[in-house]
Amino acid sequence: MIRVAIIGATGYTAYEAIQILLRHPYAEATYLTARGDKCGPVANIFPSLTDRLSLDLEPLDLGRLSERADVAFCCLPHKESMSVVPQLLDAGLKVVDLSADYRLHDVKLYESVYDVPHTDAGNLSNAAFGLPELFRDQIKGASLVANPGCYPTAASLALAPLLKEKLISSNDIVVNAVSGVSGAGRKPKQVFHFPEMNQNYFAYGVGTHRHQPEIEQILSDASGEPVEILFQPHVLNIDRGISESIYAKPTREISQASLNDLYQEVYADEPFVRLFTSPPLLKDVACTNFCDICPMVVKDKIVLFSNIDNLIKGASGQAIQNMNLVCELSETSGLL
Amino acid sequence: MIRVAIIGATGYTAYEAIQILLRHPYAEATYLTARGDKCGPVANIFPSLTDRLSLDLEPLDLGRLSERADVAFCCLPHKESMSVVPQLLDAGLKVVDLSADYRLHDVKLYESVYDVPHTDAGNLSNAAFGLPELFRDQIKGASLVANPGCYPTAASLALAPLLKEKLISSNDIVVNAVSGVSGAGRKPKQVFHFPEMNQNYFAYGVGTHRHQPEIEQILSDASGEPVEILFQPHVLNIDRGISESIYAKPTREISQASLNDLYQEVYADEPFVRLFTSPPLLKDVACTNFCDICPMVVKDKIVLFSNIDNLIKGASGQAIQNMNLVCELSETSGLL
Amino acid sequence: MIRVAIIGATGYTAYEAIQILLRHPYAEATYLTARGDKCGPVANIFPSLTDRLSLDLEPLDLGRLSERADVAFCCLPHKESMSVVPQLLDAGLKVVDLSADYRLHDVKLYESVYDVPHTDAGNLSNAAFGLPELFRDQIKGASLVANPGCYPTAASLALAPLLKEKLISSNDIVVNAVSGVSGAGRKPKQVFHFPEMNQNYFAYGVGTHRHQPEIEQILSDASGEPVEILFQPHVLNIDRGISESIYAKPTREISQASLNDLYQEVYADEPFVRLFTSPPLLKDVACTNFCDICPMVVKDKIVLFSNIDNLIKGASGQAIQNMNLVCELSETSGLL
Amino acid sequence: MIRVAIIGATGYTAYEAIQILLRHPYAEATYLTARGDKCGPVANIFPSLTDRLSLDLEPLDLGRLSERADVAFCCLPHKESMSVVPQLLDAGLKVVDLSADYRLHDVKLYESVYDVPHTDAGNLSNAAFGLPELFRDQIKGASLVANPGCYPTAASLALAPLLKEKLISSNDIVVNAVSGVSGAGRKPKQVFHFPEMNQNYFAYGVGTHRHQPEIEQILSDASGEPVEILFQPHVLNIDRGISESIYAKPTREISQASLNDLYQEVYADEPFVRLFTSPPLLKDVACTNFCDICPMVVKDKIVLFSNIDNLIKGASGQAIQNMNLVCELSETSGLL
Repeated sequence: MIRVAIIGATGYTAYEAIQILLRHPYAEATYLTARGDKCGPVANIFPSLTDRLSLDLEPLDLGRLSERADVAFCCLPHKESMSVVPQLLDAGLKVVDLSADYRLHDVKLYESVYDVPHTDAGNLSNAAFGLPELFRDQIKGASLVANPGCYPTAASLALAPLLKEKLISSNDIVVNAVSGVSGAGRKPKQVFHFPEMNQNYFAYGVGTHRHQPEIEQILSDASGEPVEILFQPHVLNIDRGISESIYAKPTREISQASLNDLYQEVYADEPFVRLFTSPPLLKDVACTNFCDICPMVVKDKIVLFSNIDNLIKGASGQAIQNMNLVCELSETSGLL
Repeated sequence: MIRVAIIGATGYTAYEAIQILLRHPYAEATYLTARGDKCGPVANIFPSLTDRLSLDLEPLDLGRLSERADVAFCCLPHKESMSVVPQLLDAGLKVVDLSADYRLHDVKLYESVYDVPHTDAGNLSNAAFGLPELFRDQIKGASLVANPGCYPTAASLALAPLLKEKLISSNDIVVNAVSGVSGAGRKPKQVFHFPEMNQNYFAYGVGTHRHQPEIEQILSDASGEPVEILFQPHVLNIDRGISESIYAKPTREISQASLNDLYQEVYADEPFVRLFTSPPLLKDVACTNFCDICPMVVKDKIVLFSNIDNLIKGASGQAIQNMNLVCELSETSGLL
Repeated sequence: MIRVAIIGATGYTAYEAIQILLRHPYAEATYLTARGDKCGPVANIFPSLTDRLSLDLEPLDLGRLSERADVAFCCLPHKESMSVVPQLLDAGLKVVDLSADYRLHDVKLYESVYDVPHTDAGNLSNAAFGLPELFRDQIKGASLVANPGCYPTAASLALAPLLKEKLISSNDIVVNAVSGVSGAGRKPKQVFHFPEMNQNYFAYGVGTHRHQPEIEQILSDASGEPVEILFQPHVLNIDRGISESIYAKPTREISQASLNDLYQEVYADEPFVRLFTSPPLLKDVACTNFCDICPMVVKDKIVLFSNIDNLIKGASGQAIQNMNLVCELSETSGLL
Repeated sequence: MIRVAIIGATGYTAYEAIQILLRHPYAEATYLTARGDKCGPVANIFPSLTDRLSLDLEPLDLGRLSERADVAFCCLPHKESMSVVPQLLDAGLKVVDLSADYRLHDVKLYESVYDVPHTDAGNLSNAAFGLPELFRDQIKGASLVANPGCYPTAASLALAPLLKEKLISSNDIVVNAVSGVSGAGRKPKQVFHFPEMNQNYFAYGVGTHRHQPEIEQILSDASGEPVEILFQPHVLNIDRGISESIYAKPTREISQASLNDLYQEVYADEPFVRLFTSPPLLKDVACTNFCDICPMVVKDKIVLFSNIDNLIKGASGQAIQNMNLVCELSETSGLL
């Protein structure tokens, strides 16, 4: 069995990773870390794990870590993550980092977007970008994988086929996204207090969301030309799930039939991409690692619908998928 | 007191109109009609009206109607409405029609969109379009007012100021809209069964929604040039409310400051349009007749956020606003 | 116009009072207080009041207060309230206190339940208990009214008719209650963070909830004999509303018909109590000042269903009802 | 692999059974039946099964059935079920029936409760009652298992330990239950239309719910003395989950400590019963086969809290658990 450590195991992504590992045939959670005040039985923090997982949350101890784990999921907030990841690597573990710290290749870009100096530029340049459908080969041999953001996963899987084929203009794309509230993390906030968020919906991060440059980087890397998007996220009153409605301009006449053929061809062998001919229901990807995509020709535009569970394909499910690749397990282990 | 008849009083828009009239200082519901099987005390259909309104639902009788009402709200489905509205007018009532039957001026357009012959072309050409912020003068003298669709109300109030000033291109506009489930009416459907719709979200009517030509007509009338949009609606798991995120291309450089000035100037005296400098919360218009608008300059685009309650400003509240104008009452009576 | 001050105007009950006052024909909010850091335009705290109420939140100033208001709603937390209420009374205002500080007549009981010394025993003994359906006469002349708790309002209106007639045993009553999350206040907490509370339901305060002695006091006062109940509250994933299912033992054979007659007789003239012959829907009291009651004979027990909106009849609506009585306005003003 | 047929595979319980079987190591769905108009790829009815299960829904054919399946889950409505189950048994399959048709041993009781003649009395008397924690031995050898109702599962597991020990009076028990809407089935109804059920809660089946005699039978069988309860169900605005708050009278003084000891002892080795010392959160059993129980001494009563997922431990999870027993697989296979 692959032994998995989860660093910073008190948030939603850690919880989802634990849940998946409980069903994983070849991997198991063996070491969970938290800040001192949260230490103790993991079921104290996540009562739903009562009688299911008897591990304690412990302060991070690199010695213990290297004895008890082969792979680490780093679930710390960005900025914290890059101070810990090098130690995890030095301790001899393979690392999947779920923060944003190793996603943007360009240190300057990272520093302007996250407004802190990057303290681990060396590993930044070695990190594989953990979106298997686009960068599987990089991931296989990697010792550090930067797990993608939730919004970028849905947007990139939907747009990459068109941009690779230069079928849409690369600088006139609108990504209108909605996300469940778990995407904002587990820390209570006024706006997410139940009586305020319930039956509510609103846009945020107008022109400033940090996933915009991440999406642009992924798609530029995938298509080989600079891509620019307008990304507008919204939050709606559901726990989990991201749905993106994407509007693009064809560079030439394209029929619905050939659009369908393109996506069928590109994603024929991908276990976690499903194609639909009408807009998929967000509920149908809840608690799964699927990305459901529906490409349509509408008037003079191409409209793409792309749905994921932000906590699974948008975070911990994809982290497991990356771990499976890194550890040479079957890519779908624990995920179907 | 203005005496109001509600024709087809068993659906959500009728219910909202009744609720508003219960608080209206100068108007009251005096005559409610329904199909035979639904007749009887209105509280049987809407238990929340118990001890609040003692009217019965009755079959439509034009004699009684003309004795007991001055104004009629026609809440019948489109196609049915145009067979009844002429009789209501002949009975001497002022009519606000909440269906789609009198919204599209062009009979041919109506027939292609709704796929039935229009049987009341005469009144069609006389109907005022009931969006007071754009067509107040038409409405004042009218005997028949076509109450706008919910999506078109939010989209038109947001876009009209820019299109009138030719500040955005009139054929490259994306309207991404979400609506609460009440917009789909009161008849149960599988997809809206609670366990299916709860925690769900999806796009529908891709490229085919009947509000697209309605929005285009309103904005063409308001701006004096042909307007083309791409309108994409979605449904989310809330009861009520519409939120639209609108993406447009400026025809020339425009600053955030001058954008704000434009909207301030246009809507300074409008009692039901509120302007925000950050995206408004959908919950803040729930159960009100307000349209909350936030215009923003984002990269090379203008992004507009526009929220209404689909049942109030998007239907019955606007119908009351139109009735107030037609009957020369204060426009805000019963609505603040 | 009666001029109303709201002391501590940043929470849900204050917000509801403001909303009701906006529609009240004979009273208006004229003075709102908050802690320094929250001071400024009230629309900053409650954006839905934008363009509807232009008052500022100000620090409490007794001089200004006595110039600008006739009545004060004290919306401070219990313990804080009893330190401010005497000053409000000295400033010459009538006071409706929405905290728990003046509800329990017995200082010793208060101190054991709330675990602090009571610092205003004098006013405690003069305070009227603000449940008009049971104590209307006390309230009319009062200068200080203790507004009841939300759970006690629903329980007492349902049980009083039976206990007054000694039709049920007074020491074998189970009150099983559910409440929307707004009952827990506006301060964010982990358990009420949207992703945790959404689609959740749980019991709390087992055997310890502070509304249990309050319910017992009300019913003992109303019936003239000591009443003991087992009160078990739960929270469910709605914003607002309380629904209580109450199980009692008849002291003698009673028919459904005579049960109905009893309630009809007791509540015939009460504008805010509605009687049903099958369990009412919680949604039908949302945003209203009604208490919907359904008494039923089931096997060897009497089962009562009682619904209110915890923020209206359970708090601010009842406070307005009490103000109407104290100020000799029509009792229903602003509430229908 | 055990080959499983699902008879009537278009509802929620069938869907949950399919989902569990997709993860089951020793069993798989091999044959799905539906009425003619629903036949075709199962993903047409349940889009979330796209690319996960390629079976078709077919009309029931006993020949094919006996070739292609070893066990049948009968998910037909009660009354229909008893006309099909004998044929499934004759075809040589083991049967787990999820309807109510084989739950009540006494034909007369069944006929009075369900108001139809029972047409398969022979098998009724042979059916094992599929609540493993109480009747495991019966189930092991059975060829027909009657899967319990959802409410009875939660109530019986909570009450059995006390009744077996005669620690509570057997005729003064109140079971106050709430259920998610999926318990009402998949067929759309007005009251469960999203805009009506959302943010709603209400009691139903007052004194008449068919699970009351079922609970009484289970507990009488388990305790050896006649048990009488008052069962009051409610529906709340969640998809799935049942939470019961149960009020009972101790027959003698009992301490919290000894109450805890009793439950610890009774359920120590049960994989699907979890014990808590404070009320469990309903959300923590969602999508699991657990029954979470918390017994508490409150004043002069014992209060029990018992939570399950109505579709898993309350239906299809328990059906799999029964299949595991009948087929001599590990009881927890596919369920943890």
